[in-house]
Amino acid sequence: MTDPLHEDGATAITAVAADGLYRATVPRGEGRRLYLFSRLARSYRLFDGLPSVTGGSAHFRQHPLTGEWISYSGVRQGRTFLPQTAECPLCAMTSGELKTDIPVDDYEVAIFTNRFAALTEEASLPPDMMLGTRPGTGICEVVSYSADHQASLSTIEPDRVALLLDALAIRCTELMANADIAYVMPFENRGREIGVTLDHPHGQIYALPHIPDRIKKAADAFRTDDPLAGLSQRLPEQLVLAKNKSGIAFVPPWARYPFEIWIVPHQQVADLAALGAEARADMAALVSIAAGKLDAAFDAPMPYTFAWQMAPRGYADEFHLHAVFQPLKRAADKMKYLASVEQFTGFFLVDLLPEAAADILNGQDGQRG
Amino acid sequence: MTDPLHEDGATAITAVAADGLYRATVPRGEGRRLYLFSRLARSYRLFDGLPSVTGGSAHFRQHPLTGEWISYSGVRQGRTFLPQTAECPLCAMTSGELKTDIPVDDYEVAIFTNRFAALTEEASLPPDMMLGTRPGTGICEVVSYSADHQASLSTIEPDRVALLLDALAIRCTELMANADIAYVMPFENRGREIGVTLDHPHGQIYALPHIPDRIKKAADAFRTDDPLAGLSQRLPEQLVLAKNKSGIAFVPPWARYPFEIWIVPHQQVADLAALGAEARADMAALVSIAAGKLDAAFDAPMPYTFAWQMAPRGYADEFHLHAVFQPLKRAADKMKYLASVEQFTGFFLVDLLPEAAADILNGQDGQRG
Repeated sequence: MTDPLHEDGATAITAVAADGLYRATVPRGEGRRLYLFSRLARSYRLFDGLPSVTGGSAHFRQHPLTGEWISYSGVRQGRTFLPQTAECPLCAMTSGELKTDIPVDDYEVAIFTNRFAALTEEASLPPDMMLGTRPGTGICEVVSYSADHQASLSTIEPDRVALLLDALAIRCTELMANADIAYVMPFENRGREIGVTLDHPHGQIYALPHIPDRIKKAADAFRTDDPLAGLSQRLPEQLVLAKNKSGIAFVPPWARYPFEIWIVPHQQVADLAALGAEARADMAALVSIAAGKLDAAFDAPMPYTFAWQMAPRGYADEFHLHAVFQPLKRAADKMKYLASVEQFTGFFLVDLLPEAAADILNGQDGQRG
Repeated sequence: MTDPLHEDGATAITAVAADGLYRATVPRGEGRRLYLFSRLARSYRLFDGLPSVTGGSAHFRQHPLTGEWISYSGVRQGRTFLPQTAECPLCAMTSGELKTDIPVDDYEVAIFTNRFAALTEEASLPPDMMLGTRPGTGICEVVSYSADHQASLSTIEPDRVALLLDALAIRCTELMANADIAYVMPFENRGREIGVTLDHPHGQIYALPHIPDRIKKAADAFRTDDPLAGLSQRLPEQLVLAKNKSGIAFVPPWARYPFEIWIVPHQQVADLAALGAEARADMAALVSIAAGKLDAAFDAPMPYTFAWQMAPRGYADEFHLHAVFQPLKRAADKMKYLASVEQFTGFFLVDLLPEAAADILNGQDGQRG
């Protein structure tokens, strides 16, 4: 509910209780929505925000050799690219002048529909091509971790990370309730090295109309047994970074990236919602520890990709939720690049043994970098 | 054959005729070999080159969710990293003092066993892990395109590119004759943006003991029909970059990278050797044109991955040879990054439509960059 309040044009919006937290929902035009999550009851001052971007032409085409679907979206070519901090679209607004995507005076965790979405609920028809095509339906959301432009997953308080996971649990469940959606992935790209176009700490959620091949293959593995069951007992102690009553953070013996970290709940659950609030808080603590260790490894922010892997449609009974950090540095001054071998064949070449990476992350190595 | 010749310790080595070109073979210790290819009969002055690197522990581990094999090789972590031009290991030697990997006074095309190989013919036993492992057998070779440190695929004469393809045809056939090898891929990583550690124009050949999943999937597509047959008749003219009597270069409607280019022979042949010398020369001309267009697009060297896709073992009858450039720039000042969505799911998001990319490469666009 909103109502006029201030001379500067701001209105007031009040969060309502939902699933153990509070949420305010702000329509943002063109079917876009902004959700503001808080642990306690609160209200926000709401301004006019950045307008919608229109003219997308998202569609999928099918690769004739691999059968994979590929998304084409011209609208993203013009997306916001490394703006000045003062023009950051993820910052809160202090006046009506500099508009942002989160046009409120302050917030804790915000999730909103991406203005430059690769996928949209109303997708255009694809052009007539010599191969299989389909409309590029799907939903792309942006997740801001904090109103603090300088924060990062490694410095945000674990309690705030828990709020973040609670918010992701709610949104992912809502997205999967859409019958057109088959797979939902919350993720974070961190660092300019991986092409991040906004420095503000944030992640994204992609909701896809199909299950990508790699995800389907991994999900199928859980149908015979659970490769992630009982890791606390089975993993070599050297690879363990942290554990608590709900889960474990470790460098997997099958790491494909130099400082890869997996965070796995002891309990086999399909997604963040099924985990429950208490276990989510425990998982948040492990995420904080892992993110901290990555930044500590070379005393510098570690660029990475990070994602929660949750059950695609049809796999809720057997899938085992896990989160994965895929860092991009193999030494203090050297990046791990995915080049021809990885990109053409999918065969990964790893220079740093997982055991050695775990030693560095645990501060057990003689030399760093 | 070698014999002492010079006061500075150099010996002479003479190339012998083989398959329409001349080749000199130089044993380099520890089972490593250097091959020097030339169009005409010639001899070389041979010096002592860089010594072998030992102590590798290449092995594979199997991912418990996807089943993919992952290669671990600690020896590569210390590989040569952006040396000064005067210390380039791919340059010819002018005296016995600065040793290189190609220790002759001059050469045209050279192929040699990688000193910092991810895979080796004699692989060590893997450590005892909680998952499937196997020795990291395979062969990694380096392919120097020219003794000219400043050259690139886009500036080398088409005749030299034809010699390069002739040399690749010979070596790939020899590597596939090894019963332990199931798949051979010649490729090039170009540009520091993709992690190239040597600026000298060069490619590589990887010979793997298994067929990676993505490659197998693509090869399987040829078993029902040939998706690359008759492209000259079927492709929209807008996407064609060049064609000649043997093949066609084009931006595929299924491009996953912003300026992706495929080069496909009209004839369905399994590999470069089956193509024959005349068609290889025609394909070389198309490669030169494509590489030139990529560098012309933004008047700057285009970083890319490039590979020849040839029949894996068991697919020789139906596979259709093709070469693929996967460029990394989506605009003059912007890179295409593979971030969380591509890396976790394999689902590609493309900002630049293939049709628009073809217009830019063909100089048909109103605006560049």
